[in-house]
Amino acid sequence: MTHTTDNRPIAVFDSGLGGLTVVRNLTQAMAGEDIVYLGDSARVPYGIKSLATVRRFALEDAAFLRRFDPKLLVVACNTAGAAAIDALQAAFPAPVVDVIRPGVAAAVAATAGGIGVIATEATIRSGAYQQAIHQADPAREVRAVACPLLVPIVEEGRPEDDPIVNHVLCDYLRDLQRMRPGALILGCTHYPLLAGAIGKLMGPETTLINSGAAAAEEVRRYLSAAGLRNKRTTGGRLRCFTTDNPQRFAELAERFGGRNVDTVEYVGTDELETLS
Amino acid sequence: MTHTTDNRPIAVFDSGLGGLTVVRNLTQAMAGEDIVYLGDSARVPYGIKSLATVRRFALEDAAFLRRFDPKLLVVACNTAGAAAIDALQAAFPAPVVDVIRPGVAAAVAATAGGIGVIATEATIRSGAYQQAIHQADPAREVRAVACPLLVPIVEEGRPEDDPIVNHVLCDYLRDLQRMRPGALILGCTHYPLLAGAIGKLMGPETTLINSGAAAAEEVRRYLSAAGLRNKRTTGGRLRCFTTDNPQRFAELAERFGGRNVDTVEYVGTDELETLS
Repeated sequence: MTHTTDNRPIAVFDSGLGGLTVVRNLTQAMAGEDIVYLGDSARVPYGIKSLATVRRFALEDAAFLRRFDPKLLVVACNTAGAAAIDALQAAFPAPVVDVIRPGVAAAVAATAGGIGVIATEATIRSGAYQQAIHQADPAREVRAVACPLLVPIVEEGRPEDDPIVNHVLCDYLRDLQRMRPGALILGCTHYPLLAGAIGKLMGPETTLINSGAAAAEEVRRYLSAAGLRNKRTTGGRLRCFTTDNPQRFAELAERFGGRNVDTVEYVGTDELETLS
Repeated sequence: MTHTTDNRPIAVFDSGLGGLTVVRNLTQAMAGEDIVYLGDSARVPYGIKSLATVRRFALEDAAFLRRFDPKLLVVACNTAGAAAIDALQAAFPAPVVDVIRPGVAAAVAATAGGIGVIATEATIRSGAYQQAIHQADPAREVRAVACPLLVPIVEEGRPEDDPIVNHVLCDYLRDLQRMRPGALILGCTHYPLLAGAIGKLMGPETTLINSGAAAAEEVRRYLSAAGLRNKRTTGGRLRCFTTDNPQRFAELAERFGGRNVDTVEYVGTDELETLS
């Protein structure tokens, strides 16, 4: 282990506010790191769109963050990772971490049994989680379920004990309840906000895997091993950009990020260029 | 009434597929008219975004359609109309019709009683329907309710008799059921696909107003009076453009439009320019 430090920020992008749950995980793992975040709220959600469109958006988001000279890029959005991780790793000048492979590694480590995945329609359709689990252990039983209503339900601000939340979760989780997986991957940044209700429906035999928390742990291990940690251990700053209204972003950000946001600035999608 | 004709197309845009319900209404009213349609599926939905962002998108959508030299532009998306009708009417080289004022006129004509409005969060927040009703009749009781989950529910393809559809509608319509309005405006292109379930919950004393159908009737009247109808009376062609995947658009289009789509072509949001 080296003892050098690196005070450059960690860059994080997401389709909107959801990635702030990953920022929360990063802050819990490394309270001293500065973070610069881009939420593409003008084009949210990514999870209902084609992978080609999501890839284009992801490359634009990353190109914007490149200007802050980050030491590492976190693709908080599962769908963006599913659509663009290879293209991002090829083109971005710093290491790129998605949430999919860390989530899968955590799930495989947590259970010898079957693994369930819930995510957006585009993430499930991409097969990214299914393939990553198969690569890690070809023998695992896998069941992947798209849950399109969960993102709008969380964005609407419904509490976990709302009867509609329970009704929709029962509908999506029916097959997974029958499967009784050893682990269930929460494959979308919004789903940790429903972890209580999901855990109640799945029961104690199923470990819920927060892909964002697993990714934050991978980032911490990588930066520590590479001697790239900030020399501060507390007080990291969070600078946010959004492609939609900054006031609205700031109002909703605390619910997702569980921390104060220092600044929120606007950047128009028409100002974004692609990564090259 | 003049007897000239004009074979130029009617242009229609929407945030995505929903505006095809308005295309259906236009076709029912004028089967011979050619229609060119732009669905901004890469940036859908508009109804959860700030009015400034929606205005920017709407001006880009209209600028794209201008190249087809349309005789009239229909803003099928309620939120785009709420955000941008004045800017569009100022900048577009042909008459612009939104769905809000025709919907309000139909509601005011349908009842002497109170008027309910259901729409997206951004449309309700804009106050466009409330103001238009107040202008038409300051004495009317108005109740406007944002229903954020209805668009994703329709896009997910849930049938009207799905228990979750019923549960969500009951939640949103509770106050409107108590109000017993004489008319309820369906202030979003997606909602006519839930008209059966909404009508059942509201009861026979409430007339449901489809803003898209009201707008189609206004377009028919205007074109007829101005001598701008197509000389054909059947067989109008529908040419569609989408900013996301054309295959997916074509697959889902029939459910919304109730008619065959002749062609679907791709146009990237990065190719769009603003109206000026």
